[in-house]
Amino acid sequence: MKATIHKLLIQIGAHFPDTPFAVQYWTGETARYGHGEPAFTLILRSPGAVKRALRDGSLGFAEEYVAGNIEVQGDLQALLKFQTAPIYDAAQLSLWEKFKFLVSAMLTRDTIGRAKKNVAHHYDLGNEFYRLWLDETMTYTCAYFRMPDDTLEEAQRNKHEHICRKLRLQPGQTLVDIGCGWGAMMFYAAENYGVTCVCYTLSERQYEWVREEIERRGLQGRVSIFLKDYREAEGQFDRFVSIGMFEQVGKPFIPTFFKKVKRLLKPGGTGVLHTIGGRRSLPNNPWIEKYIFPGGYIPTLDEMINAMNAVDLNAHDLEDLRLHYVETLDQWRHRFNRRLPAVVEMYDEEFVRRWRLYLNAAAVQFRHGETHLYQIAFVNGRDNSLPRTRDYLYAANDAGAYFKLPVYDTERGIVR
Amino acid sequence: MKATIHKLLIQIGAHFPDTPFAVQYWTGETARYGHGEPAFTLILRSPGAVKRALRDGSLGFAEEYVAGNIEVQGDLQALLKFQTAPIYDAAQLSLWEKFKFLVSAMLTRDTIGRAKKNVAHHYDLGNEFYRLWLDETMTYTCAYFRMPDDTLEEAQRNKHEHICRKLRLQPGQTLVDIGCGWGAMMFYAAENYGVTCVCYTLSERQYEWVREEIERRGLQGRVSIFLKDYREAEGQFDRFVSIGMFEQVGKPFIPTFFKKVKRLLKPGGTGVLHTIGGRRSLPNNPWIEKYIFPGGYIPTLDEMINAMNAVDLNAHDLEDLRLHYVETLDQWRHRFNRRLPAVVEMYDEEFVRRWRLYLNAAAVQFRHGETHLYQIAFVNGRDNSLPRTRDYLYAANDAGAYFKLPVYDTERGIVR
Repeated sequence: MKATIHKLLIQIGAHFPDTPFAVQYWTGETARYGHGEPAFTLILRSPGAVKRALRDGSLGFAEEYVAGNIEVQGDLQALLKFQTAPIYDAAQLSLWEKFKFLVSAMLTRDTIGRAKKNVAHHYDLGNEFYRLWLDETMTYTCAYFRMPDDTLEEAQRNKHEHICRKLRLQPGQTLVDIGCGWGAMMFYAAENYGVTCVCYTLSERQYEWVREEIERRGLQGRVSIFLKDYREAEGQFDRFVSIGMFEQVGKPFIPTFFKKVKRLLKPGGTGVLHTIGGRRSLPNNPWIEKYIFPGGYIPTLDEMINAMNAVDLNAHDLEDLRLHYVETLDQWRHRFNRRLPAVVEMYDEEFVRRWRLYLNAAAVQFRHGETHLYQIAFVNGRDNSLPRTRDYLYAANDAGAYFKLPVYDTERGIVR
Repeated sequence: MKATIHKLLIQIGAHFPDTPFAVQYWTGETARYGHGEPAFTLILRSPGAVKRALRDGSLGFAEEYVAGNIEVQGDLQALLKFQTAPIYDAAQLSLWEKFKFLVSAMLTRDTIGRAKKNVAHHYDLGNEFYRLWLDETMTYTCAYFRMPDDTLEEAQRNKHEHICRKLRLQPGQTLVDIGCGWGAMMFYAAENYGVTCVCYTLSERQYEWVREEIERRGLQGRVSIFLKDYREAEGQFDRFVSIGMFEQVGKPFIPTFFKKVKRLLKPGGTGVLHTIGGRRSLPNNPWIEKYIFPGGYIPTLDEMINAMNAVDLNAHDLEDLRLHYVETLDQWRHRFNRRLPAVVEMYDEEFVRRWRLYLNAAAVQFRHGETHLYQIAFVNGRDNSLPRTRDYLYAANDAGAYFKLPVYDTERGIVR
């Protein structure tokens, strides 16, 4: 058993010569791999735990880690980075694993009832839990750190401002938000841009929170919320936004989602989709699927563009905020760690280990893996009065900077 | 015959109530459609010409227009806009037409010899011809009109500056340009950013021109040019650019192109692809294919992203400059019209009519159709020192604005 592990660790270590590490076996013996100060020590408490990790891959490793049978002292992310080595390349999934993924994707029946249950699993952990470590705007999506020393709060407001600019919001316009979380985007848009907002969530806790906030802020009639699935959304709006919800839609429902966006958006209207995206279409990590986000799927950029093209939603601006998510996750982990005693009291040690693993693994994926955070701005059909440049995102708005194409007459030249 | 035409024109006119028009038949009779001052008069000189247009669609119409058997007085673009009516929707291609497209795409053997012939067809018309009406930088791709009153020259330089910023060029870097035209991008980059450039063209006329310009500007050793196909390009560069060449690559060769880009670009290096893109994968317009750009194909955005993902080229910034192409084409048409006597002397009236149709039809496609101009900035693999925001495109560069992710240690917090 130890010989097998030793051989595997030498093989992995060869891929990461800059990351020396140590291993402590259940017998008390220790071994070192690579040269220099170890970045972490992997503590293997029983041969059974190692067997499971080897047999069940990331699911086995994560379950044994959460149970405390495998421990990591030092830099957990350095260990998690080992996942990105080519030996773990998901392109090398066995035919059987690919077949299982195909079948499970086909069998997915993402009914509205099921979607609600999936959302409840994660977001209904309790507003008190998220309030412990999210920023004061209660925003649980990638922030936008314009400046290196922005606080998390500032970076979340930056994100909302950035999206409002991408939407080119004007007072009096209507805006729909699909998957609004605790409503921070809507409150920002209503209060700073004078738009009327309608938003949707499937989380009962979020729904209650947002209703109370509407009262508290005196935004009745300017922000409304529905406890409904995106497929039940109604009406037609000047602007559309969805932040960090599309990851929950599922591969078979990508076209369904964009058909709904098409119906919700007026012709010529602008939308912004903010979502995690992957380089390749892959099954969810089985541990994430089981414990963190059941029913999710990381779409690829071409899957999204393809489905958008099919209904004449035309992307005109794409931005990858991948590195901003690394910083966001760093901040969340710091804040989570600062509130550990409260989290332990609310849940237990296993819960803490699960979240520690999740927050670190996500950061590694954005930093070293193939995971991106895309903001896609798009128009329903055509808008021939778009801004000439994207200065509107970065400077004070200049009304003269918008396209006003002249009516062209072949014979007489430009006539107006 | 006249009854058939009349019925068809009523049907088309109903889709464009804002565009009244008149028709003058070969008998001398005239008719008016819609209410108000006609935007144009369609002059049908013979029943045979009309029969051909009805039988062969856009190819028949264009050939009869160029031959002078069909004439348009007034706003040619208003007539060409009729193409975008749903009755002409290419989604309604017959099964037979789709089959023909599929077969022709599969049969395409884009050998290097064939590619060279296709390029010669258009670009070897003669440097003197293009010098008549292009701007002084000899740039024959979409310009970037930052300000409404930019001249064509300014807008072309703006485009080159915009791309240099997207590439984040630094002195001493190497840059490869695939399909360099008359070299304007390379001259701009070498002279303003101190980079060393290698560029490729398949046009002998362009090759000669660029070689002379290198001498004239004293850029020997800083700009080199090869008369070779992109598939023959060699070396590895810090930066990659291709402007208005990808449209010539052809559908079956999209993966081939990006595999070559992957090999030409250093790991972590940045590239910018500037290309026309369509919403749907469609056969070329048969007239454009026969007379203007043989062997071309307008790729869709998802086709490009899909092929880029396959070789780990990661798009991080997409911008649609569609409306800038409308303005560019307006400028080219003006300048072309101003030099008509010289063009007629160089060629003939048919040539003028062909180019008039081409420049107007292209403008209509960008303005009302499903044609876009995409600039895609991408990284080969990952670059974790990307700028935080896109201010670098719009303001003076701020060196502090780049990502420098700290090394994170789970236990000890951020360590450097």
